[in-house]
Amino acid sequence: MPPETIIEVSGVSGQRGPADHKRRQEILQAADEHFRLYGYRKTTLADIAKSIHLSTPYIYKFFDSKQAIGEAMCWHCLGAVLAHLEGSLSETNSPVERLRRVFIGLERISWQLFNEQKKIYELVSASFEEHWESVGRFQDGIVEVTRKVVIQGRESGEFERKTPLEETSRAIARMTELFYHPSFVRQASKSQEDEALAVANVAIRSLTA
Amino acid sequence: MPPETIIEVSGVSGQRGPADHKRRQEILQAADEHFRLYGYRKTTLADIAKSIHLSTPYIYKFFDSKQAIGEAMCWHCLGAVLAHLEGSLSETNSPVERLRRVFIGLERISWQLFNEQKKIYELVSASFEEHWESVGRFQDGIVEVTRKVVIQGRESGEFERKTPLEETSRAIARMTELFYHPSFVRQASKSQEDEALAVANVAIRSLTA
Repeated sequence: MPPETIIEVSGVSGQRGPADHKRRQEILQAADEHFRLYGYRKTTLADIAKSIHLSTPYIYKFFDSKQAIGEAMCWHCLGAVLAHLEGSLSETNSPVERLRRVFIGLERISWQLFNEQKKIYELVSASFEEHWESVGRFQDGIVEVTRKVVIQGRESGEFERKTPLEETSRAIARMTELFYHPSFVRQASKSQEDEALAVANVAIRSLTA
Repeated sequence: MPPETIIEVSGVSGQRGPADHKRRQEILQAADEHFRLYGYRKTTLADIAKSIHLSTPYIYKFFDSKQAIGEAMCWHCLGAVLAHLEGSLSETNSPVERLRRVFIGLERISWQLFNEQKKIYELVSASFEEHWESVGRFQDGIVEVTRKVVIQGRESGEFERKTPLEETSRAIARMTELFYHPSFVRQASKSQEDEALAVANVAIRSLTA
């Protein structure tokens, strides 16, 4: 997460004042550095304040709590995953291939994040364990991406049209959790790409019935 | 888990000597009581030994470690879940209904266990987090149950026969994890029966294509 992009972070709860305030970005940047070095759990709001010569009460002008800062950063990360996924889907027009990419893409990004950005992954794990708003937004995003693909496949005649759109989209989105949820990713000893593909195939066959 | 049924516990690693040894059952019964009262994490091998007036070294004649006792008890619980599931499946001859029952049954038993037997659930959670052998056996059991249903549906002509049996059975078994894995069950704020049914429907439609 390059610091210059942190300015995009906004829209999750616990934040105060204008989103583009220079101080807010400075706080997020300091938090980003601390979380990367020491992890989310071990960093306190006071540590962040001290590192940029601010008082802890002053930080409260911008964020309700450490979690509010964590949420902003977590959404930055999860939002980037969604954007990456949408980019990958836009490279093909086939709804079947798009659905496959939802599964494979989520598995791949999660595995990479888990292995290459341990400290950021710790933050993401905390967000799932504690049901942060950023996780709900992410999961809603996955449902939306899935729903769009199902609609597209129905319109093109490649997918069945009998089942309720909402139930089907939500169930398939739910199935992707097996490959991005931190509890599962942490427990995997290797990439789960083959498994993700096999589950994607079940979803695809259910639609191309 | 009534104590008199503990005698069935056998076959997981870390156990020593004949499985029906009276002392072994006595140790398992004491462990069961301790785990139920204080939880698996807070119980030590010494606590168990002391409660039945045995020395800790003597317990090592029967079990390698506290985990070995935990595994035996955990398998007792997970094995009972599998047996319950098989009983439920035997009540119908329809492969579609059987597959539905795999999902619904696992969701229901897990939710019940989580809500009504907190301390035993803690033990089950530990077994998943630490990849105990009992979990592998349980998951293999789910794959086997699923495979049998798929084979039955293929033989009766209700299910498709194009996809590789093993890949399909494993992928569907994997999907059931969403409803029994402790990480997910713990995070659910209510029973996930509707969701389990929706995901079961995806699996069923993929087979009845």
